Amino acid sequence: TGPHSAEAESQTEWTDVQKKIIPWKNSTPSLDLETAFQDRAAKLGKSNSRLIVVASLIDKPTNLGGLCRTSEIFGASALVVGSLHYIQDKQFQHLSVSAEQWLPLVEVKPSQLVDYLQQKKTEGYTIIGVEQTAKSVDLTEYCFPEKSLLLLGNEHEGIPANLIHHLDVCVEIPQQGIIRSLNVHVSGALLIWEYTRQQVIKQKQQQ
Amino acid sequence: TGPHSAEAESQTEWTDVQKKIIPWKNSTPSLDLETAFQDRAAKLGKSNSRLIVVASLIDKPTNLGGLCRTSEIFGASALVVGSLHYIQDKQFQHLSVSAEQWLPLVEVKPSQLVDYLQQKKTEGYTIIGVEQTAKSVDLTEYCFPEKSLLLLGNEHEGIPANLIHHLDVCVEIPQQGIIRSLNVHVSGALLIWEYTRQQVIKQKQQQ
Repeated sequence: TGPHSAEAESQTEWTDVQKKIIPWKNSTPSLDLETAFQDRAAKLGKSNSRLIVVASLIDKPTNLGGLCRTSEIFGASALVVGSLHYIQDKQFQHLSVSAEQWLPLVEVKPSQLVDYLQQKKTEGYTIIGVEQTAKSVDLTEYCFPEKSLLLLGNEHEGIPANLIHHLDVCVEIPQQGIIRSLNVHVSGALLIWEYTRQQVIKQKQQQ
Repeated sequence: TGPHSAEAESQTEWTDVQKKIIPWKNSTPSLDLETAFQDRAAKLGKSNSRLIVVASLIDKPTNLGGLCRTSEIFGASALVVGSLHYIQDKQFQHLSVSAEQWLPLVEVKPSQLVDYLQQKKTEGYTIIGVEQTAKSVDLTEYCFPEKSLLLLGNEHEGIPANLIHHLDVCVEIPQQGIIRSLNVHVSGALLIWEYTRQQVIKQKQQQ
């Protein structure tokens, strides 16, 4: 084993992960994410976003199903989940309303997230955590890069400290109420919307 | 009975409706909406919004519970529901995470909505339907007035035609995906967020 074997192993690992993307109906089973993105853009008849929504830390099938629906509707390029078994769950399916058939889903286990985020950084993605921290940027002031990756936190524990260090930025949603915090599907939806809104405005300015 | 009896009856009716606001703990049971608004603003320690979220057409307790949580967090002044019985529902409570204890809830039955919307217009509210119609304004282009009332549609049938005529404007969320439409709680959350975002930016500009 040479000096690059660990890196090579890591590459192989991610190639394998990305082969777990659910193929669309009548499509090849071995799509990688870039092919999936282009195929999806073609199906939608317009260029769609370079937004990856990472929900590997989320436990509840209802939240994952809801995020799947919302991510599909706003043309995200992929939803990353901790296990593809979730899509067999009745509650997931009830909330996703079949969006998993149209949106690429990728399996990245929580233990693989550090490597996955590093890999996406090398591909030019900005890694954005959705979390309230002392250094978080207010969502009303954050300008999303075209290649954005949103990391959503666990329902109870948010984003663990070891992952916070790998983020480029934390974004928080300003909250005025008395009860603690937004549901993670709603938090995710607001950031997906805000990304989309900014992209729409940029596209109009370029015309 | 004189010429103004119908109007007088209507006034009485709305006073009754507004008395159905759930009192906060240790608060008087006969709060009207303006008192509730001021009390809430005081509890939150800052001026909160003049946003009313009308969910009387929504049937599912999960959607209502979720909207209750989201409306509370963004400091809406009230959530209007078709029946206060919903707050006894286990699914409502599971999703609302007790937000109904802090957010004023008002009961307005679907059959009372036309009168209620008219009443709110006379109080200076702009009546905003969340619906896809030929005349809808794109959410990325809509500027919310300070006194905004959001009318959300039913999960299956949206906003019925007889109510569309009573709206000042319809706003739609631009959607890029293949599946039909957003969940009504998410649609509502995006408009509540967009209202909040615009208010935050206005307040910063005034400073």
